[in-house]
Amino acid sequence: MIGHIKPLINLIGELKRLPGIGPRSAERIAYSILDMDEEAVAGIGKALMDAKINIKRCPVCFSITDEIPCRICMDPIRDKSVICVVENAKDVIALEKAGNYKGFYHVLEGSLSPGRNVGPDNLRMKELLERLDKGVFREVIIALNPNVEGEATAMYLNMLLKPFSLKVTRIAHGLPIGGELEFADEMTLMYAFEDRKVL
Amino acid sequence: MIGHIKPLINLIGELKRLPGIGPRSAERIAYSILDMDEEAVAGIGKALMDAKINIKRCPVCFSITDEIPCRICMDPIRDKSVICVVENAKDVIALEKAGNYKGFYHVLEGSLSPGRNVGPDNLRMKELLERLDKGVFREVIIALNPNVEGEATAMYLNMLLKPFSLKVTRIAHGLPIGGELEFADEMTLMYAFEDRKVL
Repeated sequence: MIGHIKPLINLIGELKRLPGIGPRSAERIAYSILDMDEEAVAGIGKALMDAKINIKRCPVCFSITDEIPCRICMDPIRDKSVICVVENAKDVIALEKAGNYKGFYHVLEGSLSPGRNVGPDNLRMKELLERLDKGVFREVIIALNPNVEGEATAMYLNMLLKPFSLKVTRIAHGLPIGGELEFADEMTLMYAFEDRKVL
Repeated sequence: MIGHIKPLINLIGELKRLPGIGPRSAERIAYSILDMDEEAVAGIGKALMDAKINIKRCPVCFSITDEIPCRICMDPIRDKSVICVVENAKDVIALEKAGNYKGFYHVLEGSLSPGRNVGPDNLRMKELLERLDKGVFREVIIALNPNVEGEATAMYLNMLLKPFSLKVTRIAHGLPIGGELEFADEMTLMYAFEDRKVL
């Protein structure tokens, strides 16, 4: 019988396309829509389109923004001599939440992955080199994910950056704060020992 | 910085209103929207509004439908002598999926719950009695949820149905198929013993 209520089937199908929404959650959300008032449902639809239409990539750092260039790139107070390279716009947001970094960003829009056919030309590598050429940067901080793709991308980037007389650093790997040593994986412990600091 | 991208904040806020969507899933879905093409996002918005506008309550059984009266109420093949009382439209769909019941339904739109201020007048009790008055039913199957509210509603309903010379039954409670006896709760085991069948 549910198979006959086309608008419901259609809505469940559309919702299932979203990440983390399985068939059961899609059904649950679809039913909840029926109990909401029309204005609230219209609000969700409008917010979806608004976000889609008004959020763009910044043409300078390639993070997401609703102003072009983005507020970070236009911020006169930020440290113009440091640039932090990340994989995704989400990483920029995470680092901004942490709040202690005050330089600029460059979003690669991914990491090198031969398996998924992502090579240097699919990432914002060229744009990074152009920025470094034009700018007055003295340090590039590599803040890519500590996994195989991220490490490979970091190594490739380090090679590309050699011709520039820049300090190239990467963010520290080690035990996460609040984590417990006995539950840490071997790679994390290895990094934690390698990157140990003199107190 | 995320606090400055208004369309993103707004979308995350709207998504968090949906059941089962916490702040993290809302963020994840919002970001995925940015990577979808505009047509796909418009499709979700349209499906939401379509469902909201076109899915109604059937004025006969109070289940959800996009045709009035609903296909079940209009089905000439169904058994006109049996009516199954459920709490929600979702229950109708679940029973239709099971597929062995071929009579009519009546959705109460909830269960009695003094705590949440739901009395008989807030449920479709009156409409059920009217249907029973007008119809040629010989059996009412009570298929309410086996919890405190459902049981209380079933008892109240049974009392209301006394004046009608009808067979009133309730669906069996017991061990779920595929379940294991050692993990069943005490109430289920109690019902399973009480409702035991001669083989």
